[in-house]
Amino acid sequence: MLSLTGHNYIGGERRAAGTVEHKSLDASSGEALPYTFIQATPEEVDAAAQAAAAAYPIYRNLSAVRRAEFLEAIADEIDALGDDFVALVCRETALPAARIQGERGRTSGQMRLFAKVLRRGDFYGARIDRALPDRQPLPRPDIRQYQIGVGPVAVFGASNFPLAFSTAGGDTASALAAGCPVVFKAHSGHMATAECVADAVIRAAEKTGMPKGVFNMIFGGGVGELLVKHPAILAVGFTGSLKGGRALCDMAAARPQPIPVFAEMSSVNPVIVLPGALKARGATVAKELAGSVVMGCGQFCTNPGLVIGIRSAEFSEFVAGLADAMGAQPAQTMLNAGTLRSYAGGVAQLKGHAKVTHLAGNEQAGNQAQPQLFKADVSMLLEGDHLLQEEVFGPTTIVVEVADSAELTHALQSMHGQLTATLIAEREDLTAFRDLLPLLEVKAGRVLLNGYPTGVEVCDSMVHGGPYPATSDARGTSVGTLAIHRFLRPVCYQNYPDEVLPQALQNANPLGIQRLVDGVHSRDALS
Amino acid sequence: MLSLTGHNYIGGERRAAGTVEHKSLDASSGEALPYTFIQATPEEVDAAAQAAAAAYPIYRNLSAVRRAEFLEAIADEIDALGDDFVALVCRETALPAARIQGERGRTSGQMRLFAKVLRRGDFYGARIDRALPDRQPLPRPDIRQYQIGVGPVAVFGASNFPLAFSTAGGDTASALAAGCPVVFKAHSGHMATAECVADAVIRAAEKTGMPKGVFNMIFGGGVGELLVKHPAILAVGFTGSLKGGRALCDMAAARPQPIPVFAEMSSVNPVIVLPGALKARGATVAKELAGSVVMGCGQFCTNPGLVIGIRSAEFSEFVAGLADAMGAQPAQTMLNAGTLRSYAGGVAQLKGHAKVTHLAGNEQAGNQAQPQLFKADVSMLLEGDHLLQEEVFGPTTIVVEVADSAELTHALQSMHGQLTATLIAEREDLTAFRDLLPLLEVKAGRVLLNGYPTGVEVCDSMVHGGPYPATSDARGTSVGTLAIHRFLRPVCYQNYPDEVLPQALQNANPLGIQRLVDGVHSRDALS
Repeated sequence: MLSLTGHNYIGGERRAAGTVEHKSLDASSGEALPYTFIQATPEEVDAAAQAAAAAYPIYRNLSAVRRAEFLEAIADEIDALGDDFVALVCRETALPAARIQGERGRTSGQMRLFAKVLRRGDFYGARIDRALPDRQPLPRPDIRQYQIGVGPVAVFGASNFPLAFSTAGGDTASALAAGCPVVFKAHSGHMATAECVADAVIRAAEKTGMPKGVFNMIFGGGVGELLVKHPAILAVGFTGSLKGGRALCDMAAARPQPIPVFAEMSSVNPVIVLPGALKARGATVAKELAGSVVMGCGQFCTNPGLVIGIRSAEFSEFVAGLADAMGAQPAQTMLNAGTLRSYAGGVAQLKGHAKVTHLAGNEQAGNQAQPQLFKADVSMLLEGDHLLQEEVFGPTTIVVEVADSAELTHALQSMHGQLTATLIAEREDLTAFRDLLPLLEVKAGRVLLNGYPTGVEVCDSMVHGGPYPATSDARGTSVGTLAIHRFLRPVCYQNYPDEVLPQALQNANPLGIQRLVDGVHSRDALS
Repeated sequence: MLSLTGHNYIGGERRAAGTVEHKSLDASSGEALPYTFIQATPEEVDAAAQAAAAAYPIYRNLSAVRRAEFLEAIADEIDALGDDFVALVCRETALPAARIQGERGRTSGQMRLFAKVLRRGDFYGARIDRALPDRQPLPRPDIRQYQIGVGPVAVFGASNFPLAFSTAGGDTASALAAGCPVVFKAHSGHMATAECVADAVIRAAEKTGMPKGVFNMIFGGGVGELLVKHPAILAVGFTGSLKGGRALCDMAAARPQPIPVFAEMSSVNPVIVLPGALKARGATVAKELAGSVVMGCGQFCTNPGLVIGIRSAEFSEFVAGLADAMGAQPAQTMLNAGTLRSYAGGVAQLKGHAKVTHLAGNEQAGNQAQPQLFKADVSMLLEGDHLLQEEVFGPTTIVVEVADSAELTHALQSMHGQLTATLIAEREDLTAFRDLLPLLEVKAGRVLLNGYPTGVEVCDSMVHGGPYPATSDARGTSVGTLAIHRFLRPVCYQNYPDEVLPQALQNANPLGIQRLVDGVHSRDALS
């Protein structure tokens, strides 16, 4: 058994003045694990935000290389979390060990990728317009712009990724990379995991000489609201439900000083199965799709929750195959009791709707999630029925049959914003349905071809975002290196002598970064 | 007299079904000009937003070069607006002809600069991660990201820049550049000007074959609220008061689908006069500063509204010189009666405050603005008195004396967000006060040395933005080419064949743009 204190992480110290206790649960059995977590008091929430604010001027002014070394040290510490840690995460989440091992590598890899971004230096967005003293009618002063971290960031971990979207996950990594200290609100579903990871982050911070308060973590219910309303917090990262995310957005917008919230919330991730693909490989697609729907018990933001096809014999055959495949899927344990309750509720709503037919799946009962397949009338999409627009988090998906390609276009136009949209198509389909792509581009952050959206690659070009309600701000992504830009803002210097400027903007270009100089990209030193 | 209809611009047509009429006024005399403007009906506001939405899929998919040609055509049409136009703008705003001629050039120059950005292509933010089919444990698919326009944008023009921040101003230029159709709400202070400029935009749209609805304009009171709440509008640009901007932000945040608002609002633009500079050239600084405060009747967002110095004989002498210079400034006509009313109210509030001393300026009365100089006790800054944090729009400024450099730091820390912060300093000051720069960087979007903030250069490196309440979102700028990024969002393609991809992402790099390919910046074609 690991030794955990259950205390909050505040400015490099552990504090637990509160009296409200939370227990971590074994996700499979529901039994309490032998760890107790003490809810942060309002004073401790304030202290955590203040600690982050105190660290901000120091941390943001460290060189990007120093911040990169911190992220790399976090990565090393996370990689070093051993088998007992993996076993603990598995107990708290009911996720299999192989998945947790993979997620551990993804989490440390993410830290190292952001370290690479810091060393590459393009996040500085350095732009230089040199003085034109002889310009008529007025001279132009020397102006130089770069990007700085916005300030302390509050991060809310996700239930479904105890590592990659939690304590040291993508939001934390991108905020720390941007030069923003973090106050992390631990998810109630994996508090013991959070403590182990927070310890890893603190060890890395100490090894690399980071200021106390660069990373803080609080436990408890209701503390997130205090955090988002705290004047020292200047941005928020969140992954979770539409209801929870929207509540945070509303709080943030109502503050005396409103702040941006990047909430990744609800997406049904439509998969459009086109005629050529159905003809060529409908049976295979049905099997692959079923596998994607039930993978990880369907507990992914990008789980395919809607499958759309044009009426035909091939589509009917495909749906029958999908029903067979879904019917054969075993029940799985979900992340926690609340998730199972929501899933059962969502399934019951679908079953009770007059325009929805149940195609496959055992009765939803007991303490596991039963995979389900439904078919909904296209009118529900066309009329904007919320049941088809809000994700049912778990191993279920809904088939919608459209009459023809015109109705397909209308159905897609009726959809709300999505994280992903997928075409299953042959070359001939791409030609015949070429007008779909610009439409999907407007609806989603990521558009896939002949793949399934559940794998989200961590790389420079990934977009894990999209129009509302997929996220609260389509201009951000919470996976991939572009995520750093959510927490940066531009500043410019006018008429300053070279030696006073930030290194990124100095004539000699000591960082060797690419800059936009008088409208031209260059790595050259300036005379 | 120019021939104006006073009708709304909706989808390439002129409509005026309403019955509410507005008159444009001569700003100097208060007399009604012989033009009547018909307030848009709720149906017309809806039609304008729908027209923009209908244009969006067409307009955003035009090549960047086509959009550049449109912006350049607008620039040509604006340059061609003649002396009768300039005379009209002068009548509506009481601004002098030379200023309007300069602003006309600034406005067309701005359009041409965004055209250059479109031709340069870095706004695409193209990123490519090529497939790694042999990667273990999982292959990496091909993923390619670029930026697209967010959708129709509502733009609210500013009272104080009838051209450069209005109908075809910076917000409109950056939205159109991003591929976003615009619905412009004409400012009540210069509706005739707005009509002439809208005609120029429409002529350019027709000449370059743009879709109808790419640019729309509505007149009237209360129509802006309908616009911001319209589901087809996906972002807002605004320049104006804190009260007005915040109201729009609150409306936008409360929508079923919240949208971003980029509001440029309130800034007092502190100028810090350091000891070495006072010693070397205090008298000159006093004269220059007075000139900056009264320039254009102080009607600039970046007008220096607060002057801070450390107690000394030189500072007292400087303040006396500033009082002399301010006292010698003539009264000026403001943009409109409402602006004068606000100014008089602001001046009266300052005069009535127990901790504020009036140093110079004639009694504020009559129909012109009298320049004023005040001195406020530093405790007002330290205690966060709102009177020192909110701009008094007009030719006035407030001196604050601090005891020493520690109190200077505290005073600056107490300040809210600013568009600009300025140091008047000698080299020795920059060494002695080196800790001020990181502090100013956190408070403002632009940090100046030995200049005055009222000139805002339109270039790649300009930041006309800053933390709240200077703007509603410090991550944006409303001047300079970075402004385009407010209206763009990322999308990525996964696993698509080359010929289906947007040109910006194709292997051959047909646009010849710089891209981030497998983590390296390159203009190369890919094999």
